[in-house]
Amino acid sequence: MLPDRIAILGPGLLGGSLLMALRERLPEANLRAWARRQESVDAVLLAGLADLASTDVSEVVKDAELIIICSPVEHMAALASAVTLGQPSKGCVVTDVGSVKAPVVSALEDIFNRSGLQFVGSHPMAGSERAGLEAARADLFAGQACLVTPTLFTADSALKITRAFWQLLGCRVLEMTPEEHDRNVARISHLPHVMAATITLAALQEDFTAARCIGKGFRDTTRVSAGDPDLWTGILLQNRAEVLQTLADTQARLSELLAILENVDEVALRRYLREAKMLRDAVPPAV
Amino acid sequence: MLPDRIAILGPGLLGGSLLMALRERLPEANLRAWARRQESVDAVLLAGLADLASTDVSEVVKDAELIIICSPVEHMAALASAVTLGQPSKGCVVTDVGSVKAPVVSALEDIFNRSGLQFVGSHPMAGSERAGLEAARADLFAGQACLVTPTLFTADSALKITRAFWQLLGCRVLEMTPEEHDRNVARISHLPHVMAATITLAALQEDFTAARCIGKGFRDTTRVSAGDPDLWTGILLQNRAEVLQTLADTQARLSELLAILENVDEVALRRYLREAKMLRDAVPPAV
Repeated sequence: MLPDRIAILGPGLLGGSLLMALRERLPEANLRAWARRQESVDAVLLAGLADLASTDVSEVVKDAELIIICSPVEHMAALASAVTLGQPSKGCVVTDVGSVKAPVVSALEDIFNRSGLQFVGSHPMAGSERAGLEAARADLFAGQACLVTPTLFTADSALKITRAFWQLLGCRVLEMTPEEHDRNVARISHLPHVMAATITLAALQEDFTAARCIGKGFRDTTRVSAGDPDLWTGILLQNRAEVLQTLADTQARLSELLAILENVDEVALRRYLREAKMLRDAVPPAV
Repeated sequence: MLPDRIAILGPGLLGGSLLMALRERLPEANLRAWARRQESVDAVLLAGLADLASTDVSEVVKDAELIIICSPVEHMAALASAVTLGQPSKGCVVTDVGSVKAPVVSALEDIFNRSGLQFVGSHPMAGSERAGLEAARADLFAGQACLVTPTLFTADSALKITRAFWQLLGCRVLEMTPEEHDRNVARISHLPHVMAATITLAALQEDFTAARCIGKGFRDTTRVSAGDPDLWTGILLQNRAEVLQTLADTQARLSELLAILENVDEVALRRYLREAKMLRDAVPPAV
């Protein structure tokens, strides 16, 4: 079902983990990797993660049947254009791992459809506050949701291959439109990310002394604020409208909470915490 | 060094974990447990966690040399008064596990000093979003910070016993005033808690559909919002002034972030995320 020649563009945390997982789960596949820097190419080859690795996109995508773009979202369009200048196999399917979908899918569909390639947007809900190939792991995707965002232009065959690819890696595939994706992910990924940063700043920036008292609660609540600031700057700007909306909602809830505490409104405070607990308890457990 | 007869008042998550840890680390000690409900008394005895357990405070504290009050903070004063009506050993040391210290220490010092008992406030930075004896674990305290809050009225001998007690359980003991405690803990524990609830409400209350997309980021950032709403209502009201201050700081940071996104200020956004990452990276790692 899955094609043989697979190219991963950008062997960072996600791309590197894809290579590792594919080596395990598709040992016969011909894997290729493109990296911007020669050191990354060398690291991929040294670890035996690809049969071919290069800083030249054309070399890597030549005859490829499946390409996964794993660069930061703001570089995806340029990389997509470079792919179309290479000679991927006819009918080659291209997907990505970007955290924002509407602008990415719109730009990449446009680029690939003009070149006879098939693009389907993907976003595996896997990651870490760590970055780079050093942090990559073969099991990063196992048990995680992968959001796949077909459009009216998506060919059934391309969607099938994309779904099969993520399922092979152990993902639970969920389909939605790029717009639904961006709305959902603003709330359950981008919001927690910026709030983790906000909590860290509010708690420690003026006075770091409280840091020595920190327990598991603070550590977990703010873990993602150690993520790559450049990567997240790109994500937040690409999904700016949805992030602004959910941040405005958050600010309204925070104002409500401040009023409750100012008024010593015990009943309302208990209700606020109860409603949050009820929702949190209803979140499907991790697999 | 540590006394032989130790009474735990309130065998929930923390009290139950104390009993388990003491059974392991102080097997010769005579352990007693008080619980409000007979079912909890029965559960403690069935699990072999205490040599004596009862719903009668006087019976449990009779001749006790060390007492740890593990009830919700708003019930501590009533429980302390009940202790003074029993007949603990002369010079008995009393401590607690409350998440708020200034009002608790002030009330309990007053009660115990009048009765010739020695009170020292404690707050082990251990816990879980789960509650009750079912969630208790012998290793809950190992490697965690325990904040101990002596005052001008604290006897050296009582402080020594309190420190030795937490160190026996594997805690890193940090001393500070009750006021310093409440300021620090508002920022690194109470703030993350209410913000986890706020993020959960903002993300999911109006529309729960995003829940199926949730990954590890949301799970970790909001984990503590599944904590006991009654317990946390008490904590937040007892530490209301400090929590209000840190929430106001958080609201100011959030307004700053909204303005940055509204203005598409990429430089300021990157700086915001970088400063948060720098602080988060500087937090001492978990042991």
